[in-house]
Amino acid sequence: MRAAIYNGPRQIEVGDRPDPVIVEPTDAIVRVVFGSVCGSDLWYYRGLSPHALGPIGHEFIGIVEEVGPEVRTIARGDLVVAPFTFCDGTCANCRGGWPSNCMNGGSFGNHGIDGGQSERVRSPFADATLVKVPGAGHTEETLRSLVTLSDVMCTGHHAAVSASVQRGDIVAVVGDGAVGLCAVIAATRLGAERIIALSRNRARQALAREFGATDIVPERGDGATHAVLAMTGGVGVDAALECVGTGESMKTAFSIARVGSIVGAVGAPHDVEVPIDVVIFRNVGLRGGVSPARRYIPELLPDVLEGRINPGRVFDFETDLEHLLEGYVAMDERRAVKSLVRVASL
Amino acid sequence: MRAAIYNGPRQIEVGDRPDPVIVEPTDAIVRVVFGSVCGSDLWYYRGLSPHALGPIGHEFIGIVEEVGPEVRTIARGDLVVAPFTFCDGTCANCRGGWPSNCMNGGSFGNHGIDGGQSERVRSPFADATLVKVPGAGHTEETLRSLVTLSDVMCTGHHAAVSASVQRGDIVAVVGDGAVGLCAVIAATRLGAERIIALSRNRARQALAREFGATDIVPERGDGATHAVLAMTGGVGVDAALECVGTGESMKTAFSIARVGSIVGAVGAPHDVEVPIDVVIFRNVGLRGGVSPARRYIPELLPDVLEGRINPGRVFDFETDLEHLLEGYVAMDERRAVKSLVRVASL
Repeated sequence: MRAAIYNGPRQIEVGDRPDPVIVEPTDAIVRVVFGSVCGSDLWYYRGLSPHALGPIGHEFIGIVEEVGPEVRTIARGDLVVAPFTFCDGTCANCRGGWPSNCMNGGSFGNHGIDGGQSERVRSPFADATLVKVPGAGHTEETLRSLVTLSDVMCTGHHAAVSASVQRGDIVAVVGDGAVGLCAVIAATRLGAERIIALSRNRARQALAREFGATDIVPERGDGATHAVLAMTGGVGVDAALECVGTGESMKTAFSIARVGSIVGAVGAPHDVEVPIDVVIFRNVGLRGGVSPARRYIPELLPDVLEGRINPGRVFDFETDLEHLLEGYVAMDERRAVKSLVRVASL
Repeated sequence: MRAAIYNGPRQIEVGDRPDPVIVEPTDAIVRVVFGSVCGSDLWYYRGLSPHALGPIGHEFIGIVEEVGPEVRTIARGDLVVAPFTFCDGTCANCRGGWPSNCMNGGSFGNHGIDGGQSERVRSPFADATLVKVPGAGHTEETLRSLVTLSDVMCTGHHAAVSASVQRGDIVAVVGDGAVGLCAVIAATRLGAERIIALSRNRARQALAREFGATDIVPERGDGATHAVLAMTGGVGVDAALECVGTGESMKTAFSIARVGSIVGAVGAPHDVEVPIDVVIFRNVGLRGGVSPARRYIPELLPDVLEGRINPGRVFDFETDLEHLLEGYVAMDERRAVKSLVRVASL
């Protein structure tokens, strides 16, 4: 089959790999329909986060081609969403609701595990990992949104859930990448009354507004802090969603979070220092991390299928598997928010 | 009146200060019955945290002597518990449930505000600040426990609440000082099934057990981590309560917290670094800080009055106001967990 291979920073190539086969009786083989490029893939591409040589890509939807003899809930022909990690569903972390921290799981598209930027993927623990999409004849728009359930929409949702966004809240979203934009959707969905998106990019500002942002703050750093505090009578926001992962974005999130609130952080951290004095003397908490996507997908799926949320709108670049690199380059050059990879037709 | 005066590190003296008088119509004058020495007072005493020259002490109970014309709920003769901070009860932070972060409040016994280690204290915002103790004829034991509601018991409770301790949880308490011991009480009270106290001091181990600890871990650092992980099948605890405030204690708390749990931290931070990788890649949150004591006192008060909790047992040294320094020295030399200051009779 054709598959993307990570050969080192800025060296991602599409080449041939053996077709995956059922290894364990709980496996399934998925024929990928759509993959996509994650912000974390970009860190790998740039050489700023380590990645094993070999398959890459952890966001995909596809059609089940074959299942092992112990797979019960997934069958050949099913359209499935794969969360970015596989999980056994039975370990202490899975039972606790943290499937992305499964003690026997791992990430698709790293450390030799099949990646979603390829024609086929072997999914371990198919019952616990894959989520079957009910119905048929889904529109192109729906399919694009389903791809976001693999990671980015669940990650934005995790920022909002971690920050305990409540109906009526004032929420600020730090970061206007695909995760930040999905966090705006999540905050809207959870009933936030006012959503302040920090963005200085026109197109992203427009998308944030479409997703429910009521206010835009184009400033950064201290300027952003002053602007948000001025908008909230000096009190700060009820929930600050940190969707970047840099030291500056974390600092900004804590500086605008009101006393007693929680910073919901989902950005992969790079040179981040948590301001412990703000934690202790202003009672601002910090929660978040790797999204338990497998837990969230069943909750978000009906909203996608019934058109109440449309996170697929974050894809503003599309390519096919053979031209995958163009998707990386468009994001690297900030010409694209997020790249969709059309691997095959349904 | 006689009052403790902070003249600099290791220079706390009891001298004469003018009797406080009603300044604002919402003030009350409280005649102090018991004060106590806080762990944070010890930081001031050692010169490791800054403290303004002047009155000191923020933990006390006493009898109301006089109230301003606008005080409604507190009257002359009432026995009251003073939380360690005063608050207006009306600002955005107070309304949000964070009275210790009152925008118009402050701490007793610092920045020239009357301290609880003195004969009398003017309390601003008496209605919003002071909590009347119902009933009469309280035993000495009850009175001693009431003093802990001023700060230390509420602070231990805040660690447990911040870490979201639930019925049936496995909880670890890092720190065997008065706050850590009160955190054991709080975890017991919230229904924790197993409470692991980290302590290598015999007397404190015994008190922790009396308060509900089921297991003692005498190791520190990596040894403590290994011990707690071994006790929990490698999973970690459902809630880790950080009651010290050093870099090592924070590191230990994060290292034993299970995926998806929260470190409840209430130690005043000194050289603390939050392990952001644990936050993000293990979904371990961080909450806590300055306890909203005024919110907790009414909740904990019945348990003290009806003898269900007995946090006054943390006082293992007693002195009077004239010999206050002995209380500091006993704690500084770790001969005492916590010093009670008997200022006057009821």
